[in-house]
Amino acid sequence: MSLTPDQHAEIAALRDHSSPTRRATVPALEVMLYEALPVLDHGFVRVIDYMGDDGAVVQAARVSYGRGTRKTSEDAGLIRYLMRHRHSTPFEMCEIKYHVKLPIFVARQWIRHRTANVNEISARYSILDREFYLPAPENLAAQSAVNRQGRGAVLEGEAAAQVLDLLRSDAMRTYDSYAWMLNEDADGEPVDPSRPGLARELARMNLTLNTYTQWYWKTDLHNLLNFLSLRADSHAQYEIRVYAEAMLESVKAWVPLCWQAFADHRLGAVTFSAGMLAVLRRMLAGEAVEQPGSGLSKREWAEFMTALGR
Amino acid sequence: MSLTPDQHAEIAALRDHSSPTRRATVPALEVMLYEALPVLDHGFVRVIDYMGDDGAVVQAARVSYGRGTRKTSEDAGLIRYLMRHRHSTPFEMCEIKYHVKLPIFVARQWIRHRTANVNEISARYSILDREFYLPAPENLAAQSAVNRQGRGAVLEGEAAAQVLDLLRSDAMRTYDSYAWMLNEDADGEPVDPSRPGLARELARMNLTLNTYTQWYWKTDLHNLLNFLSLRADSHAQYEIRVYAEAMLESVKAWVPLCWQAFADHRLGAVTFSAGMLAVLRRMLAGEAVEQPGSGLSKREWAEFMTALGR
Amino acid sequence: MSLTPDQHAEIAALRDHSSPTRRATVPALEVMLYEALPVLDHGFVRVIDYMGDDGAVVQAARVSYGRGTRKTSEDAGLIRYLMRHRHSTPFEMCEIKYHVKLPIFVARQWIRHRTANVNEISARYSILDREFYLPAPENLAAQSAVNRQGRGAVLEGEAAAQVLDLLRSDAMRTYDSYAWMLNEDADGEPVDPSRPGLARELARMNLTLNTYTQWYWKTDLHNLLNFLSLRADSHAQYEIRVYAEAMLESVKAWVPLCWQAFADHRLGAVTFSAGMLAVLRRMLAGEAVEQPGSGLSKREWAEFMTALGR
Amino acid sequence: MSLTPDQHAEIAALRDHSSPTRRATVPALEVMLYEALPVLDHGFVRVIDYMGDDGAVVQAARVSYGRGTRKTSEDAGLIRYLMRHRHSTPFEMCEIKYHVKLPIFVARQWIRHRTANVNEISARYSILDREFYLPAPENLAAQSAVNRQGRGAVLEGEAAAQVLDLLRSDAMRTYDSYAWMLNEDADGEPVDPSRPGLARELARMNLTLNTYTQWYWKTDLHNLLNFLSLRADSHAQYEIRVYAEAMLESVKAWVPLCWQAFADHRLGAVTFSAGMLAVLRRMLAGEAVEQPGSGLSKREWAEFMTALGR
Repeated sequence: MSLTPDQHAEIAALRDHSSPTRRATVPALEVMLYEALPVLDHGFVRVIDYMGDDGAVVQAARVSYGRGTRKTSEDAGLIRYLMRHRHSTPFEMCEIKYHVKLPIFVARQWIRHRTANVNEISARYSILDREFYLPAPENLAAQSAVNRQGRGAVLEGEAAAQVLDLLRSDAMRTYDSYAWMLNEDADGEPVDPSRPGLARELARMNLTLNTYTQWYWKTDLHNLLNFLSLRADSHAQYEIRVYAEAMLESVKAWVPLCWQAFADHRLGAVTFSAGMLAVLRRMLAGEAVEQPGSGLSKREWAEFMTALGR
Repeated sequence: MSLTPDQHAEIAALRDHSSPTRRATVPALEVMLYEALPVLDHGFVRVIDYMGDDGAVVQAARVSYGRGTRKTSEDAGLIRYLMRHRHSTPFEMCEIKYHVKLPIFVARQWIRHRTANVNEISARYSILDREFYLPAPENLAAQSAVNRQGRGAVLEGEAAAQVLDLLRSDAMRTYDSYAWMLNEDADGEPVDPSRPGLARELARMNLTLNTYTQWYWKTDLHNLLNFLSLRADSHAQYEIRVYAEAMLESVKAWVPLCWQAFADHRLGAVTFSAGMLAVLRRMLAGEAVEQPGSGLSKREWAEFMTALGR
Repeated sequence: MSLTPDQHAEIAALRDHSSPTRRATVPALEVMLYEALPVLDHGFVRVIDYMGDDGAVVQAARVSYGRGTRKTSEDAGLIRYLMRHRHSTPFEMCEIKYHVKLPIFVARQWIRHRTANVNEISARYSILDREFYLPAPENLAAQSAVNRQGRGAVLEGEAAAQVLDLLRSDAMRTYDSYAWMLNEDADGEPVDPSRPGLARELARMNLTLNTYTQWYWKTDLHNLLNFLSLRADSHAQYEIRVYAEAMLESVKAWVPLCWQAFADHRLGAVTFSAGMLAVLRRMLAGEAVEQPGSGLSKREWAEFMTALGR
Repeated sequence: MSLTPDQHAEIAALRDHSSPTRRATVPALEVMLYEALPVLDHGFVRVIDYMGDDGAVVQAARVSYGRGTRKTSEDAGLIRYLMRHRHSTPFEMCEIKYHVKLPIFVARQWIRHRTANVNEISARYSILDREFYLPAPENLAAQSAVNRQGRGAVLEGEAAAQVLDLLRSDAMRTYDSYAWMLNEDADGEPVDPSRPGLARELARMNLTLNTYTQWYWKTDLHNLLNFLSLRADSHAQYEIRVYAEAMLESVKAWVPLCWQAFADHRLGAVTFSAGMLAVLRRMLAGEAVEQPGSGLSKREWAEFMTALGR
């Protein structure tokens, strides 16, 4: 992560300022507010604003005049009940806003989550910085042999070095061409007055997909948890998972009761199909069931065994 | 509006409590926070929470590290530009939450605005209060002769009295039947132990559509302004318009620059079709255009004349 | 269900007409097209239009140039995989449109599913018919003693008769008042010219929540399945469940492979929390686990036992 | 556009097949169905499926049992009324599905329209083709001096040649690196068995933003018209505008009455703010108004004059 001194100063100025409010306030999240949590080599996640707390979920579920909360144990029980039975609307009553810096190929996956508000920096309007994601050596992996969209063994030695060299040199070269085509200095004046610059909206097409972009991204707690359950999952690509993991930390600070219910009823939960359930009942009755004769396909059986920790 | 002493006390408790926060805070809206603004005979609108301010719109539009604001005049100009050109995403970065008490037939119109989060009191689960909307005499109007979904002259004398009597007596009678069928006292015990009570989820079907319900309703500023531009409009039914007008007051306190841009570029604005624009140009060139020969239908012509204040 | 001869004729005319199309077409659903499937005492569900079939899911998942389908067994396997892993976007590529007649209190639950397109008959604009839902005797149930939003024993004898009498007489009386206040005959002329009629947008508030309304409702297959998984569930209120069940029949005719995957991986599936999964593993290892010592609350334990069929 | 013989054959097979259907069918759109309309150098738009026609809008607005249409002139008038007053829900009753091949930087703009269903080819899963967008000479423009997100004069001679050379050579080089890192032949076998291939989900980050991608994109008519009003507008970037223009042709064939109303009331329409309207009234009263004294900013005045064709 590489913030300029100006950016550090802007963040510090925001953090130095405090106002009184009658709104629900979460001290543990206030501590994190505006700070850039580093992700990947140049990216970050910053919590910019939030609305509500654990009590706001309870308050909405009860449509109450006051805070709506009772004893912590009752609130926790209600929240667990709502999470377990997918009563999603009370969780929609909390809202959070992030400022994220991320590679474009990660942004393209992320944006598929449609129920969110987004303002991205526009490369039609602005010139992007010379920053691109280069994987750390331990994250340079071969194609998985068993999963068409997964990774296999980590590359080593010469193979890894060659890949990194290519990624770096291609990104640098295409960025340099981008800058040359733009032909603009920091003040928007031509670097070489003897030739015209290419329009920004065109020049940007020369950048590679590991170039960093930035956006403000705002969503409600229900949709955030959906996002996190998919993107903090072990099947998610590493480069988006690390963002999800950083955001999980903010959820933990923000709404600890919801977080606990989510960890238990969503992140750590498993869904069994009708067919798996039938097998399970046979197993609990003492029968030794094998895949042939289970009614499950080989793939389903493998997933079933994994879920049972076998 | 009829809050119980307990409800007054809950609201007062919320208003008495203040916490320090690093978040963007709007003193003018803090003043209104949690207070019930009376609407219709028993309804209200309460601002429960908010996220962001005018600066948050600017900050998102600029994807900035700090507050993003410059001089007030520059911010106002940017906000006006965004509003005029329907750049909606920066306005989505502000969020507000209301607690609303409203007649069911108003709730049915309101819920058609889908991009919002809602938690409504459930009559499957709870027993609704004995409160129903009865129009004030000046709002009891005859069917419009020209607009199939509008009102005409105000009813007077005997006609008005008969209508009000019917509305009141029918609502009271159906509520009494509802209560009788439920057969539950305040503690959930049978009033008449000799007979079973009807399930709440069934008994509720006997209530009339002017019965009051309540909900928590949360949306972003962009979608709120869409809602208000339709529902604060003179074509909206009076009974929802008064809610919209109460909410406009909170918008004015919350985001005064956005409010001003909205008043000018949306509420007070008019859209002319290509055909109207062609007529306008002829008129500005000095031609006396009449409906026949204008290329506009009679209805379009009438709307056009209204827009021009003729 | 009570269609007028005119309505029957309109439906018959639609069904008599056939056109050639290059689009994906499903003969089994064509058979049902436009027909009103009766639901409750006066309601119905009619399939009005559809887009796509099982193959369209496969085609979109493969982003193919042609139909995208291979062997039926491969397609079925892919669809099962997509359903199991909640890859929802391919299911969004099929769309269906219904015309539904339903009591207002059912419509109020239904409309909470926001990702759908709706056009409801407007009682601001039109006069509603004199039709209201009256439960069949076997559906008149007492409040559940254990579930605040459920039903208990069926009412019998005098208790049932009294409830039905009240529901019927209140609905008839309020409708008669509505008609009297409107003071309009079928041609929109005053019934009693000596007094003004009340505006439709006001008179409608006197109707009870069991009055029937109608709408066109259109959604994609993914969101339809979400709707059905909640509303065809045994916890859903009977009066909406019967609509969901009628719609399930149309899904079965329309996309049989998706239907089968849905039945197995959603309708018949069960989700176990991390805590339940831990208990399950202990049980499979031969341990006799009881609720105390399980780490599950009593409520969770009961749900867990139900899922295991114990 | 460069379809393979296999792709041509798949499309021809779809077009050769016809089935009878009771659904609303539009012969003019059937003619276009499945055909690839070329856009840019390698892109296309194909209509894959549709639901509804002009009559479906009318049918939904009237919540009718039959087709709902009356005389064409009445239907056209109703559709114009709905369009003018932004009654959007009847337009949501028509649905259309496209298969689109487009450069990634165009896809990134397009995806910001959230109310649509999308299935994009996954570069985690598949290997992208060696195709990238290179602007035709007449579309290589300098940065606009007056509009930070617009284009100015067309590049000529040497300047244009240099830019095109850079775009081409950078895209080819990065693609070659991508292919080298993947180290896979058409059968998924290593080209060079002596070294491991990089995982697809990583290698893709080396591609430039003008690489072509593909997706299935489905939306309703209301949201399609919103998309087209923004993207077929003269302020939209050329590279997305040409897609919008191709899609406008399909709308014209599909729903000619809606198209006509859209052209008049949306595409060709202008919105005047309250301030502009006040000036307009003064002008119509014969006053010679200038920007100073108009109450409009210079920018607003310029936009106002443009709208009036001055």
